Amino acid sequence: MSAASRFVRLILGEYGERAELVEERPWERRPEFLALNPAATLPILTEDSGPAIVGGMVIAEYLDETRGAFQREKRLLAEKALERAEIRRLTEWFLVKLDGEATRYLVRERVFKLEMRPEDGGGSPDASAIRAARANLKHHMRYVGWLAESRNWLSGPKLSYADLAAASAFSILDYLGEISWEKEPAAKEWYTRVKSRPSFRPFLTERIRGIPPVAHYAELDF
Amino acid sequence: MSAASRFVRLILGEYGERAELVEERPWERRPEFLALNPAATLPILTEDSGPAIVGGMVIAEYLDETRGAFQREKRLLAEKALERAEIRRLTEWFLVKLDGEATRYLVRERVFKLEMRPEDGGGSPDASAIRAARANLKHHMRYVGWLAESRNWLSGPKLSYADLAAASAFSILDYLGEISWEKEPAAKEWYTRVKSRPSFRPFLTERIRGIPPVAHYAELDF
Repeated sequence: MSAASRFVRLILGEYGERAELVEERPWERRPEFLALNPAATLPILTEDSGPAIVGGMVIAEYLDETRGAFQREKRLLAEKALERAEIRRLTEWFLVKLDGEATRYLVRERVFKLEMRPEDGGGSPDASAIRAARANLKHHMRYVGWLAESRNWLSGPKLSYADLAAASAFSILDYLGEISWEKEPAAKEWYTRVKSRPSFRPFLTERIRGIPPVAHYAELDF
Repeated sequence: MSAASRFVRLILGEYGERAELVEERPWERRPEFLALNPAATLPILTEDSGPAIVGGMVIAEYLDETRGAFQREKRLLAEKALERAEIRRLTEWFLVKLDGEATRYLVRERVFKLEMRPEDGGGSPDASAIRAARANLKHHMRYVGWLAESRNWLSGPKLSYADLAAASAFSILDYLGEISWEKEPAAKEWYTRVKSRPSFRPFLTERIRGIPPVAHYAELDF
């Protein structure tokens, strides 16, 4: 349920890299976890026994430098500086802005609070936080609809980090039934294309304990 | 009073580039500004009549690709992927985490609200927001103190984006008298070194309308 973690998994999937996943509940603030990242956020990538690489965008840049640069047509960050800037702007939009205005609150209120102890912030969902997040989400859906209408992929002619960052957030929001796809047909068509990629497949079979997904979640034709 | 904007100005200063500054009040949501960046955030860089490059870290990456890569010893982002990841982690820490936990609230409550119309959110400062931001800032000061004690510059042996991002935020907080330097001597010694750089000089002479800086703000020996 972390959009930035799903984003990194999609990149690794697109580049044909396997990763061992470790589940972490950041609110438990395990000392070993804080030693890797004092900010207590996810995702974290470690390679061999190297240092922790911390944060969705930081890991994406690292993977571009160590993997993407050798991928030619499959590279997820463009070659030209201005195109790279547009991909990064949108990636940050979905990982930081959409997350901070909608995804994070909906996941916290509807999922994490059920697993948290009261002293860590658990308890019943805050209806006003959910309402505010849903109102914000409408604006983001319109923006994705507009991007999907005006471009082939969200940042331009080719699949990029921007699509993977957006799809990571939307896969979580869709699981929770928070997306009204019929209102944004271009966004739906774009999402169907990302959802059909082999890198996306693991998400469609994963389930959150105690929270089944919305009926159409795993369907490619929804 | 935007840490991310100061960060970009420091990079340009370090690379000997001149930029024309345009003052923007994001809360006024000018249509021309929203056309450049629908997220209504700063900074934005435009070069010649090219497209807008949006966001502190996005601009920093762009400047590394178009300027830094040719700077040899003066380059502000390391050459090795793992060192670049550490510089990016800390840059994001100061531009996103410190900003979202302290700088943004203190600037909003103490500076921007005085300039905002009531319908844009202007009015008297919210004492509880200021109190929360000050409490958060103490943790950040300890972290910078720890980094400054264990390394020559914040991300390692060389001056990097991490130092410029941190110094941008601290210059704003220091202007407002929010920093207790005596508690963190290693952080103070680090800040003195950044403050002495020619790229930093413009900040020391700038003043906010109606809010004079704390007495030691412009002094190199404080």
